[in-house]
Amino acid sequence: MVKQRICLIGAGSAVFWLTWIRDLCVMKSAPGSTLALVDVNKERLDAVYGLASRYAHELKIDIKFEKTDDRREALRNADYVVNTAFPGSHDYTEKMRAIGEEHGYYRGIDSVEFNFVSDYYTLLGYKQYQLALDIASDMEELCPEATLLQLANPVFEVTTLLHRERSKVKAIGFCDEYIGVYPLLMIAGLVPSDVNFQVAGVNHCIWLTKLQNKATGENLYPAIDKWIQSDAQELWKNHDLGLWSETISPASVDMYKIYGLYPIGDTARSFTWKYHYNLETAKRWFGPLGGTDSEIGLQVRLDRFQANAERLKRLANDPTAKLTDHIATKKGKDEFSDYIDAVTLGEEKRLVLNIPNNSYLAQLSNDLSVELPMVVSKDGKLHPEKIDPFPKRLLNFVLMPRVLRANWGLEAFASGSREMLVEILIRDPRTNSEKQARDVIEAILSMPENQDMARHYR
Amino acid sequence: MVKQRICLIGAGSAVFWLTWIRDLCVMKSAPGSTLALVDVNKERLDAVYGLASRYAHELKIDIKFEKTDDRREALRNADYVVNTAFPGSHDYTEKMRAIGEEHGYYRGIDSVEFNFVSDYYTLLGYKQYQLALDIASDMEELCPEATLLQLANPVFEVTTLLHRERSKVKAIGFCDEYIGVYPLLMIAGLVPSDVNFQVAGVNHCIWLTKLQNKATGENLYPAIDKWIQSDAQELWKNHDLGLWSETISPASVDMYKIYGLYPIGDTARSFTWKYHYNLETAKRWFGPLGGTDSEIGLQVRLDRFQANAERLKRLANDPTAKLTDHIATKKGKDEFSDYIDAVTLGEEKRLVLNIPNNSYLAQLSNDLSVELPMVVSKDGKLHPEKIDPFPKRLLNFVLMPRVLRANWGLEAFASGSREMLVEILIRDPRTNSEKQARDVIEAILSMPENQDMARHYR
Repeated sequence: MVKQRICLIGAGSAVFWLTWIRDLCVMKSAPGSTLALVDVNKERLDAVYGLASRYAHELKIDIKFEKTDDRREALRNADYVVNTAFPGSHDYTEKMRAIGEEHGYYRGIDSVEFNFVSDYYTLLGYKQYQLALDIASDMEELCPEATLLQLANPVFEVTTLLHRERSKVKAIGFCDEYIGVYPLLMIAGLVPSDVNFQVAGVNHCIWLTKLQNKATGENLYPAIDKWIQSDAQELWKNHDLGLWSETISPASVDMYKIYGLYPIGDTARSFTWKYHYNLETAKRWFGPLGGTDSEIGLQVRLDRFQANAERLKRLANDPTAKLTDHIATKKGKDEFSDYIDAVTLGEEKRLVLNIPNNSYLAQLSNDLSVELPMVVSKDGKLHPEKIDPFPKRLLNFVLMPRVLRANWGLEAFASGSREMLVEILIRDPRTNSEKQARDVIEAILSMPENQDMARHYR
Repeated sequence: MVKQRICLIGAGSAVFWLTWIRDLCVMKSAPGSTLALVDVNKERLDAVYGLASRYAHELKIDIKFEKTDDRREALRNADYVVNTAFPGSHDYTEKMRAIGEEHGYYRGIDSVEFNFVSDYYTLLGYKQYQLALDIASDMEELCPEATLLQLANPVFEVTTLLHRERSKVKAIGFCDEYIGVYPLLMIAGLVPSDVNFQVAGVNHCIWLTKLQNKATGENLYPAIDKWIQSDAQELWKNHDLGLWSETISPASVDMYKIYGLYPIGDTARSFTWKYHYNLETAKRWFGPLGGTDSEIGLQVRLDRFQANAERLKRLANDPTAKLTDHIATKKGKDEFSDYIDAVTLGEEKRLVLNIPNNSYLAQLSNDLSVELPMVVSKDGKLHPEKIDPFPKRLLNFVLMPRVLRANWGLEAFASGSREMLVEILIRDPRTNSEKQARDVIEAILSMPENQDMARHYR
């Protein structure tokens, strides 16, 4: 039994879904672990601590739980630090979105080309950037050998920032978006266990770089082409696409036709205005909800969060309830616990991770974090797969603009320059005057919740 | 006396200004040369041939003139090929601009971030791209040792294209924009002969990478800072900025303050919407004409072209007129003739040229053409100066987006894909729907003048 110490930052977010804590409890290497739950919101922390302890107890898994609002206390001697914190939560981001809309920025200033993902803030990512840096600084001092597992968005920007600014800390980004490939395989008539697939790119902008028959090596892209030609229209006519269905949406097929590789997962949520000009357009490309980030789709999500939170609250307040009747007892698709299992137990595993580029994607700069599959070997080392170069068209029209957006947000953050926030908006198609850009930045930085950000961006 | 053969493609454009032909006549290595004038417009060609012959005769310079509409005939055994051709001229580009405006694209679809220069077509540059490739193909066959001197815009895109597609031909791009540095030196109280300055970047997006006292090596940027703090406001209040005054405009000063290096020449014409949203904005940043490309500025230019053309026509039709009374007899600031002199006469010269990047600007890809100063040594070799890395902010917010725009136009051209023209417009802030983008592309490709382009983009 391994006595590992895992520190979960932002544990309170588990009041919306207990999945990450569930995975840390049911993963193979959990028995004997200490799980230190950290959150600044005491009420949420208490609720999550209670739920987590009861859940593990019911399953008779020997995990020691701690709870604290003192991150540094929890970090001392940690082996793994899992960052799921999303300061301010959706209340905060929705408030910023509303101010954006008041100033003529449909869906808020951070909903823009190559990033329409509702909770993925690159321009206004200050709290996420600063928190990640602070955690990493603390880790350098208190647990320099630990690995930081970054789950909170924006994964691309945060892991890139850590790579640039706190390179002594081993940081890995995790995102489950790539599992969008599975519905695609299914509708294309492919059996996941029979195929080798490879996805690569940067977080939320990944592409199916390989799809082969596992036994013969045969290229299986033609199965996708066949689906598009024969059954796709019927699927879209007869089945309403729900949340997180972007991979099998008309938008993804359109992107594939133009750019030559199939976009996977959230990639269609991180593309151009073509698919997002307005709700009507979004419905045409993503189905009746208009996708996961539209006025409708996002509200459905937020309602689900709320319903989940209420359900978990009821369970927390009812000591007689059996949690395992309500919460799955099997691990989900998130891979951060697989990574911990692999390293802790010395089990070789293939995972899709966000790590510092080291010419793995040779067309992208090495000061970026990239997302690609790799094998975690028994000694815990990462062995990234060889990725063929992207088509030039995809590189120039998609990946490079996406990288620029990240660099803009990170440059503004690094320099603490309010003027650079304005310059980012000057490059936004919804900006019609310099004044409009300045006004919206001032309004957002004047929010009581943003006093820290206002001090940072001078 | 050197018997060099120089082929001038698009010689007919000299009916608007005789400067390029004047320079080819008065340069030191001119005597003994053959100057083959090529144009498909017979009327213009005849007029230019007559003017050029008379001009050289008056100055008693021994140049042999030829005229032809057969480019291949003229190219045979050429030593230098000077491409000044601008197919369709301004009538053509103004027609495309008007169609753009009808579809909601203020100043036309090619007037956009990082390129508001009126006759610098990257998206619709088809005729320039194809012509340059055709010339280079002919050169490979008919004068493989010759150098192609590209003067016609878009210099960045065309020289990059030649570098990628016809690398056997030695092609160099020339642009006189960098001489915008001289008015800046003067208003900053500096004597040009006392300073060393260095500019670098890509064509129409160049920056003052060094400004030093020639004798002491002292950094002279503070002289610019002093001008900005003390006299700039007064200059702008008391002196109306005219055409091609962008370097000393409020826009350039603003760009310098934000990006850390001073933009030179046309760089402010190749920047963001901040300075170009509308005429009122442009006037604020560039003076009462609104800069060289505004509704007013461009009309002033076109009127000047016309007046010049009429003046030259009168001179052409009046065999008694003494041309040297009307046309300067000294070389201008354009450097293509300096280059010819340097190579032909083995005279070492420092010139600002556009050449294939070879890690000279290490932050930019080597498949691009870059603009920087270099010494042409006695043996004709080019010795580019060492350039310090650009500030990251300038790289990410300016140079990389500018490079992307070039790559977009060139990718659409290389693939002949109409869809990619639409995709470029999808990335344009003035596009509010996919239909708008498709409609304007269809309208422009339906112009009788664009049958060749319509066949190319399928």
